Amino acid sequence: MAVAMIELAGQRCEACRRGAPAATEAEIAEFSKQIPEWEIVDRGGIPALERVFRLGDFVEAMAFANRVGELAEEQGHHPALLTEWGRVTVTWWTHKIGNLHVNDFVMAAKTDAAFGGG
Amino acid sequence: MAVAMIELAGQRCEACRRGAPAATEAEIAEFSKQIPEWEIVDRGGIPALERVFRLGDFVEAMAFANRVGELAEEQGHHPALLTEWGRVTVTWWTHKIGNLHVNDFVMAAKTDAAFGGG
Repeated sequence: MAVAMIELAGQRCEACRRGAPAATEAEIAEFSKQIPEWEIVDRGGIPALERVFRLGDFVEAMAFANRVGELAEEQGHHPALLTEWGRVTVTWWTHKIGNLHVNDFVMAAKTDAAFGGG
Repeated sequence: MAVAMIELAGQRCEACRRGAPAATEAEIAEFSKQIPEWEIVDRGGIPALERVFRLGDFVEAMAFANRVGELAEEQGHHPALLTEWGRVTVTWWTHKIGNLHVNDFVMAAKTDAAFGGG
């Protein structure tokens, strides 16, 4: 049950291959503490991490979506970004395994950092 | 029943106020012909125009979302833009009237033009 206390936002996203292990329950419990504003939602039978970020208007929402998009490209792991007037809903999950991977928690933490630094 | 044959993509989006008239059935029938790839979907009880655009990868999807976002800002009418790897789902409806306004058809046609010109 021991999960190393890793500071998520500082991690790199590991390349995720088909068959890579999904996050374990212990990892999910531990990592969720570091990203308390995210919830695990069901996306057509696949668990995903999701958070709604509030921004001032459409332009700010688009700018934040772009920051998250750049992060995604850097790390080679891509979210769904729903951009609307004054908000962006960010959803992370791992397509190749149809599940949550540790990468998704890393990316959620990086998204929080990008928002805080925005 | 006569609806003037207006070329939608060339129109400007009129400022839409609370209480503005929703698109009539005749308008919807006529305008839908000009945007055959869009479907009318239900968004929590509100009708909306939606189309999925296929792009080459995440960067291209993000770039197209930005083009649509710029169009939205120019016209003062804002969509929901769901950006994922290789695709963008664009949804137009009129928040203030909780319905479809002629503006939404104009914006859908402009979105098609932005995609074609992309």
